Amino acid sequence: MTANLNIVPFVSVDHMMKLVLAIGVDQFLVDLADYIEEDFRRWELFDKTPRIASHSMDGVIELMPTSDGQLYGFKYVNGHPKNTREGLQTVTAFGVLADVGSGYPMLLSEMTILTALRTAATSAVAAKYLAPKDARCMAIIGNGAQSEFQAIAFKALLGVDRLRLYDIDAEASHRCAKNLAGFGFDIKICASAQEAVEGAEIITTVTADKRSATILTDNMVGWGVHINAVGGDCPGKTELHRDILLRSSIFVEYPPQTRIEGESQQLDADHPIIELWQVMTGKTAGRTNTRQITLFDSVGFAIEDFSALRYVRDQLQRTGLYGELDLLADPDEPRDLFGMLLRAEKAAVA
Amino acid sequence: MTANLNIVPFVSVDHMMKLVLAIGVDQFLVDLADYIEEDFRRWELFDKTPRIASHSMDGVIELMPTSDGQLYGFKYVNGHPKNTREGLQTVTAFGVLADVGSGYPMLLSEMTILTALRTAATSAVAAKYLAPKDARCMAIIGNGAQSEFQAIAFKALLGVDRLRLYDIDAEASHRCAKNLAGFGFDIKICASAQEAVEGAEIITTVTADKRSATILTDNMVGWGVHINAVGGDCPGKTELHRDILLRSSIFVEYPPQTRIEGESQQLDADHPIIELWQVMTGKTAGRTNTRQITLFDSVGFAIEDFSALRYVRDQLQRTGLYGELDLLADPDEPRDLFGMLLRAEKAAVA
Repeated sequence: MTANLNIVPFVSVDHMMKLVLAIGVDQFLVDLADYIEEDFRRWELFDKTPRIASHSMDGVIELMPTSDGQLYGFKYVNGHPKNTREGLQTVTAFGVLADVGSGYPMLLSEMTILTALRTAATSAVAAKYLAPKDARCMAIIGNGAQSEFQAIAFKALLGVDRLRLYDIDAEASHRCAKNLAGFGFDIKICASAQEAVEGAEIITTVTADKRSATILTDNMVGWGVHINAVGGDCPGKTELHRDILLRSSIFVEYPPQTRIEGESQQLDADHPIIELWQVMTGKTAGRTNTRQITLFDSVGFAIEDFSALRYVRDQLQRTGLYGELDLLADPDEPRDLFGMLLRAEKAAVA
Repeated sequence: MTANLNIVPFVSVDHMMKLVLAIGVDQFLVDLADYIEEDFRRWELFDKTPRIASHSMDGVIELMPTSDGQLYGFKYVNGHPKNTREGLQTVTAFGVLADVGSGYPMLLSEMTILTALRTAATSAVAAKYLAPKDARCMAIIGNGAQSEFQAIAFKALLGVDRLRLYDIDAEASHRCAKNLAGFGFDIKICASAQEAVEGAEIITTVTADKRSATILTDNMVGWGVHINAVGGDCPGKTELHRDILLRSSIFVEYPPQTRIEGESQQLDADHPIIELWQVMTGKTAGRTNTRQITLFDSVGFAIEDFSALRYVRDQLQRTGLYGELDLLADPDEPRDLFGMLLRAEKAAVA
């Protein structure tokens, strides 16, 4: 990227928006899904660890590192549901990609927008393997910051073009519908979760409350649907009634994390769950019949962020949509950090 | 710092050098030592975890998070001994301070220089409690990037003004001596580690080789000295012969980390080691007699980085030595991330 060892390319929020718009949201999601799928297919070679969380009364701050042996990536992300009441984002994030060989950072990027995109892309990749064939109608329960990204990802990857929206805040549903105007959806705003799931072949739940809620009860879920459960993603935060889980084939990213954070936290520790990467590589079956309820118990895993950072990194040279950060000390003589300081002093005096 | 929610203050390498020079290296170390001591005194209220390491053939990349319940901090740091052969730093680092209440980052800072400063400040704080009274002569074995910082910290905090330098690379000793000219030291460059320790009341070992080396053998260490062992800081990397440890009172930062990474990795898991914070708070005795060998088995802990980030944060407003990073998405309506993207498109077209 640059010959200056001290410089790290930086993708700001402004650059990220320009990058997404230059590529097109739908194409960005399709391309990103390819990177995610590629990394899921080589799942076994990654260093994997559950995210490192620092919990407080109001929320959580997490670090999510992983490495494929060549590249190292991590994301900083917070989750503070109360933030929206103060005009702040529930989730903000940034991430870094680094070279394993030298340990030098290669990219610093905003990841608030990028996380929204990778979460939607991952959901759509999972649905590609799990949803009923030719599904076109999706319910989206919870119409906050993630909802439009989910809709566009499912349209771009699966051809879903009918949406049934529900949110306890009707204004959120109207905003979602308005934002999606021009993207070619047939949209119905519903008065209840019950109404939203009627006729839907895919049910996406993506609410933000930090508690054990029951967005879906067992009677609301018909045989054969695919549930894309995105909102339950930390201990004590779930969206589905446990009975739904007991009727479903459950697919997850990284079991040690999902069993703590996902809908699966409601299950016994030995309840069978299937790793999504094994479905993608053909090691395990995904959907096997039309009456099966498939459930993607999504919590978000570090490898998806790694894929997203890789994808962004690969767009930089072509688009020029990045800045340069003077983040790393680069003395003329690597062992002479103090001398660099002395020379800076002389340069300032001169 | 700023009313713009999307902006995070950023201290670049250039700003950090200007900040250190504006305050003065010695004063910076004294002030930083105060912050470190303050945080060690409230050690118990911190969230503590051993650093999260990703090891590879050539080195390690680590994340070091901690929180005092009000602020959250983490450092990214690598350690790649082979880097110097390629003109790169062995260690580069950057860090972030965030608000626990909202999860929003408040500061992004270079930490290559800052880590060198906090490591030296921590060593000097430990020595204040452990070194022989009125010690003025220090041996420094290993005269690389950390050596001048150690020297200046020990002068500023303890009044050490006689240095005995040794490095397997004599050029490194000469560079160190040259860099320290004008700082008021009486410096002797020695031909061996044996010669360097003669007459020294404090012995600082700070070599970089990533292996179990024996920089000091037992016969070289006289009764009553303080050993400041800085270089042994990851599994398989030590500097002292085990027999020295068996004769010493060993003081450490965070035992679960030190027993894996420090000189103490050579000891049985139940060998007594003393937590430095307990000495500072008076819970445990430090040096109790003049014949005692005290050993600070330093590996570097997240709380020291947290203190350093706090200190830097507190200098920003007064000095103005920072930039502004567009790191966080800040939609008008926090739940409307997608709408922000749409409005960016409209703004670009208009």
